[in-house]
Amino acid sequence: MAVGWFYLSVLALCSLGSMCILFTIYWMRYWHGGFAWDGSMLMFNWHPVLMVTGMVVLYSAASLVYRLPQSWVGPRLPWKSGHAAMHLLAFLLTVLGLHAVFEFHNHAKIPHLYSLHSWLGITTVFLFACQWFLGFSVFLLPWASMWLRSLLKPIHVFFGASILSLAIASVVSGINEKLFFSLKNGTKTYSNLPSEAVFANCAGMLVVVFGLLVLYILLASSWKRPEPGMQAEREPTRTRGRAGTPEVMLEGERGLAEPLLQKRS
Amino acid sequence: MAVGWFYLSVLALCSLGSMCILFTIYWMRYWHGGFAWDGSMLMFNWHPVLMVTGMVVLYSAASLVYRLPQSWVGPRLPWKSGHAAMHLLAFLLTVLGLHAVFEFHNHAKIPHLYSLHSWLGITTVFLFACQWFLGFSVFLLPWASMWLRSLLKPIHVFFGASILSLAIASVVSGINEKLFFSLKNGTKTYSNLPSEAVFANCAGMLVVVFGLLVLYILLASSWKRPEPGMQAEREPTRTRGRAGTPEVMLEGERGLAEPLLQKRS
Repeated sequence: MAVGWFYLSVLALCSLGSMCILFTIYWMRYWHGGFAWDGSMLMFNWHPVLMVTGMVVLYSAASLVYRLPQSWVGPRLPWKSGHAAMHLLAFLLTVLGLHAVFEFHNHAKIPHLYSLHSWLGITTVFLFACQWFLGFSVFLLPWASMWLRSLLKPIHVFFGASILSLAIASVVSGINEKLFFSLKNGTKTYSNLPSEAVFANCAGMLVVVFGLLVLYILLASSWKRPEPGMQAEREPTRTRGRAGTPEVMLEGERGLAEPLLQKRS
Repeated sequence: MAVGWFYLSVLALCSLGSMCILFTIYWMRYWHGGFAWDGSMLMFNWHPVLMVTGMVVLYSAASLVYRLPQSWVGPRLPWKSGHAAMHLLAFLLTVLGLHAVFEFHNHAKIPHLYSLHSWLGITTVFLFACQWFLGFSVFLLPWASMWLRSLLKPIHVFFGASILSLAIASVVSGINEKLFFSLKNGTKTYSNLPSEAVFANCAGMLVVVFGLLVLYILLASSWKRPEPGMQAEREPTRTRGRAGTPEVMLEGERGLAEPLLQKRS
């Protein structure tokens, strides 16, 4: 039963995440003329698409790597590398998204970083950079002691979730800001809720729902990789990992990883 | 040492929370003419103040009741009642804050609930109402079984933190929206960063920092009330609660509650 629930959630997440990206692309194509890379308004249109794709959806996928039951057995390094690589890709898309809006502002002679949306957004990207370097240096490079890693892990996990929350707050205030701009001089203003406003508002709420589901799976659900040796309420079951090292599996979580264990034994 | 850290954080939270409220009051008084309850723009000015006070600061204080070491020993009912009462007060302030903006919109013939800020805000208040009723009926009224309570507790805690995150995202997009409105026809537009924009942006970032500190204490810190009977890494120390029932105290947390235990034994 647990396995079914898990993969149902993964399916829901993948569809919701794809919808967030597709809604944003459609918004920019249908109401704002599509995309270009020439400093014009069409270049700005990459900003919302790349931020939602990088800072929200890909970031979330990278964060959830450790929730896959496959990552609970066997060596950790491949999963750590995948976690870091996906976050790096998310970061690169985010930087491209920032470049798009800065270039547009340069061309249109608009001052940079004046709105609260931009203050929050740039702070979020800065925290993301710090989080990546801390994660890479402490958890991927081999020098850090187990003591240091266990000390920093709750902080790393907390900032991982917080950065996602700040990214969602930035997306919401960004969509809000964009609609005020684009509907200011139009025939129908934002307050008359033209179709663009309804569509973009729905895209914003979709991002919020997607974010809550990711945060739930990250923080509240029991699909966390069991800490080796941690005694928990349920008696741990000792199993043999690939490299012969004993892997400790919790009774409840065993159901999720069962298919993998059978393949191995 | 742990006790010092804890009360230092409480001090930081109280000051940050008060600053969030004072900044918002000052913003509305100095740049927007102060307050009234007559449907005019001055009535709108109550909206940001009451939402920050109710939905963010008082909500956070109510959520942190269980992090006070005093709440770890002795009967739970007084602390539960305090938790529920403070949240109810936060909810009443929030409803008043909504009334202020709806009344202003009625008088000024502005449509209601068209912006993404308002969609997110009304969703957050709705979730807050559901959370309060679920909490009251399951955790305060005596009928619910221990099984049901332990099943719903992680969900209650998760939505408690999520509602705070959504409230902060609403505050950020609300400040952003208000500045676009109020600086639209002014001598200096938002993009020229007049003093009001700098001040209000700082108020918004202050709310974000306050929220992150609250979320850290709620989710990541070890100041959680130890679950009775839960075996944790550190050996639990059996102590005698007031009503003679054995209270299980974790070695680490014992340091925090030490002063109280001495008073009782």
